[in-house]
Amino acid sequence: MAGGKRKHKPLFKEEEYQRRVKKVKKMMSDRGIDVLFASHPANMNYLTGYDGWSFYVHQGVIVALDKDEPIWVGRGMDANAARVTTYLDNVDIREYADDYVHSPIGKHPMQFVADIFKAEGWDDKNIGVEMDQFYFTHKNYQILNEEMPAASFADATFLVGKARRIKSDAEIEVMDRAGLIAEKVMNRALEVVDVGVRECDAAAEIAKAQYAGTEDFGGDYPAIVPLMPAGEGTNTPHLTWTDTEYSDDEAVILELSGCYHKYHAPIARTLYLGEPDKKLKETADIVIAGLEETLEFIQPGVTCEEVEAKWREAISGSHVVKESRLGYAFGLNYPPDWGEQTASMRPNDTTELKPNMTFHVIPGIWFDDYGFEISEAIQITEDGCRSFYEFPRKLFTK
Amino acid sequence: MAGGKRKHKPLFKEEEYQRRVKKVKKMMSDRGIDVLFASHPANMNYLTGYDGWSFYVHQGVIVALDKDEPIWVGRGMDANAARVTTYLDNVDIREYADDYVHSPIGKHPMQFVADIFKAEGWDDKNIGVEMDQFYFTHKNYQILNEEMPAASFADATFLVGKARRIKSDAEIEVMDRAGLIAEKVMNRALEVVDVGVRECDAAAEIAKAQYAGTEDFGGDYPAIVPLMPAGEGTNTPHLTWTDTEYSDDEAVILELSGCYHKYHAPIARTLYLGEPDKKLKETADIVIAGLEETLEFIQPGVTCEEVEAKWREAISGSHVVKESRLGYAFGLNYPPDWGEQTASMRPNDTTELKPNMTFHVIPGIWFDDYGFEISEAIQITEDGCRSFYEFPRKLFTK
Repeated sequence: MAGGKRKHKPLFKEEEYQRRVKKVKKMMSDRGIDVLFASHPANMNYLTGYDGWSFYVHQGVIVALDKDEPIWVGRGMDANAARVTTYLDNVDIREYADDYVHSPIGKHPMQFVADIFKAEGWDDKNIGVEMDQFYFTHKNYQILNEEMPAASFADATFLVGKARRIKSDAEIEVMDRAGLIAEKVMNRALEVVDVGVRECDAAAEIAKAQYAGTEDFGGDYPAIVPLMPAGEGTNTPHLTWTDTEYSDDEAVILELSGCYHKYHAPIARTLYLGEPDKKLKETADIVIAGLEETLEFIQPGVTCEEVEAKWREAISGSHVVKESRLGYAFGLNYPPDWGEQTASMRPNDTTELKPNMTFHVIPGIWFDDYGFEISEAIQITEDGCRSFYEFPRKLFTK
Repeated sequence: MAGGKRKHKPLFKEEEYQRRVKKVKKMMSDRGIDVLFASHPANMNYLTGYDGWSFYVHQGVIVALDKDEPIWVGRGMDANAARVTTYLDNVDIREYADDYVHSPIGKHPMQFVADIFKAEGWDDKNIGVEMDQFYFTHKNYQILNEEMPAASFADATFLVGKARRIKSDAEIEVMDRAGLIAEKVMNRALEVVDVGVRECDAAAEIAKAQYAGTEDFGGDYPAIVPLMPAGEGTNTPHLTWTDTEYSDDEAVILELSGCYHKYHAPIARTLYLGEPDKKLKETADIVIAGLEETLEFIQPGVTCEEVEAKWREAISGSHVVKESRLGYAFGLNYPPDWGEQTASMRPNDTTELKPNMTFHVIPGIWFDDYGFEISEAIQITEDGCRSFYEFPRKLFTK
């Protein structure tokens, strides 16, 4: 083999993946699910280590209560990626032919998946599928349903996601690395964004910092590209960049992330080019004080909605109003979202905080004419919380 | 408004979007579809100009035969992005409250979408939905179906995609810009990849070149990050990068893209660090000759499967075997794919080539121990085809 050296391998020891599979099987068993088809790329990675930009075709990992190891299913050309990035035995890597891909002749990868279920005797079982995950289309469901008339289907949209919510110590170590990258990335962003610089050139330097990582370990592509609305754009959070130049008296919101092996440490800060007006400075002061009071409050045993209530109490009486959620669970992920979508800090979310849960706490405030964002990516600890990075909490100006 | 200047606006004139909507309505009418719900972000952009990294929540554009302009539906915080990036009137921008997002209380954005259908009197119509597109989940279908029992549903997975397949001249101009960026990106990649350089540092420079674009116009994030398998990884195409260093006698496959306002110009080349062996050199020669013969053959009126047959004929008798498709339609897109998924150069695809269709012709060859890729991103012209960039067709060595 040219080069010879092994570049790709699972990030964690085999035991870590086996513990995860065991945890997921327990959750399946509790819900009466016999076989799970996990199609979200983060769930596939979590269960097997699988990593490749192949999630634009149908693929998945099958976990069955009556089989020790999971089965990876995907396109033939990606099977070699499964062989080098997962801990699975070759026999558990099942590849479909290329004419299943965007087929002009009516073939569909879910027919191949159903064939595996039939061969294993799982086609009359209760099958969990991720009904509201991108990467599991309505058509996927239709075909599995048609091909396996004796099966029943359960909604397992968040089953693996809920297993992912509490990180192992090994995962926390990995996320600490993402945190170190996040510091470098935000420092670089604050350095390069300036009056007269094109937004795209700033984005370019930010991406470079994200991918390069540190001298000791490289970075990875985050699940979301740099979000960096400026000027008029700061009243909405999900704009990327243009090729116009930054100008005087412009607010720039930077929502970025460090990423290490698909584990994230998202970070948001706001930079004002010029002298911010009184309203923006007051907003920043109120939000930062509110964020710090909220972080003080966070500890195992409190619920997501209690955290959000604390935040609302902290900013009450001010002009700051936040209607969207205060934060969300995050960790291992792929585009389009680094959020895990399994818990949010907001009213009616009664998720109880537990050690090694990880949240992106992001009080983003968008008025009609401008916005302000600041965030911390935190780990719930035994008696409180800690951030994955150390970065000044303030409104930056230049 | 801080900054004052308008950074974001639709890329094309209003008439361009209106022509697209008209074209899509004609296709709907031909298929008996009264109302279309397009949830793929590329389709949303195509129909309205909408651009934002908000596609990790449910959203869409509604096109109805009995209404002139489309309706944008999305999350409240993204409505301002719709206001600045689309040509739509404010009345056609419909925003749902934040508690519809990953709701802990059983609310779902498709309930909000169904409410619009009901209010407009469309809930007993034949409704087109993108049944096999990511971004339209099985749950989406379930809820629309439950909320509108009198409606019927048609599979419109590729309806807008097929409208997108033939580009306007304005789109071709934009893709020429992506082509210029692609040249810069590949040049930079060939410059930075070298023995002793970490893969992540090469990826960082590539991303920087992608986002920065040219001095005259900035770049954008491509729908796929740099794919750059090296050494052992070159036997599978969708690996990204590690933080190991490139070593002597290693093949590096670079599948990259220039991107301008979400329009792509994908380009693949292979670089060998050291002196390639005879088999790789022969493979390169055969593949390049086959590619050139195939490009000579391409013209309006021939079908996708005929193009692929020509390619197979060109390489027949050699040791090169390609089982996967030779190429695919591409253009405007978002993660996870720059391919349009509506036409592929392979057996049984009878799509007839027409002027201003655009294809990524990519004979990627993966043996068990290494691979070789080279590609051209082409526009079908009146009497043949042309590439969006000029880049030497050879096996690069260093």
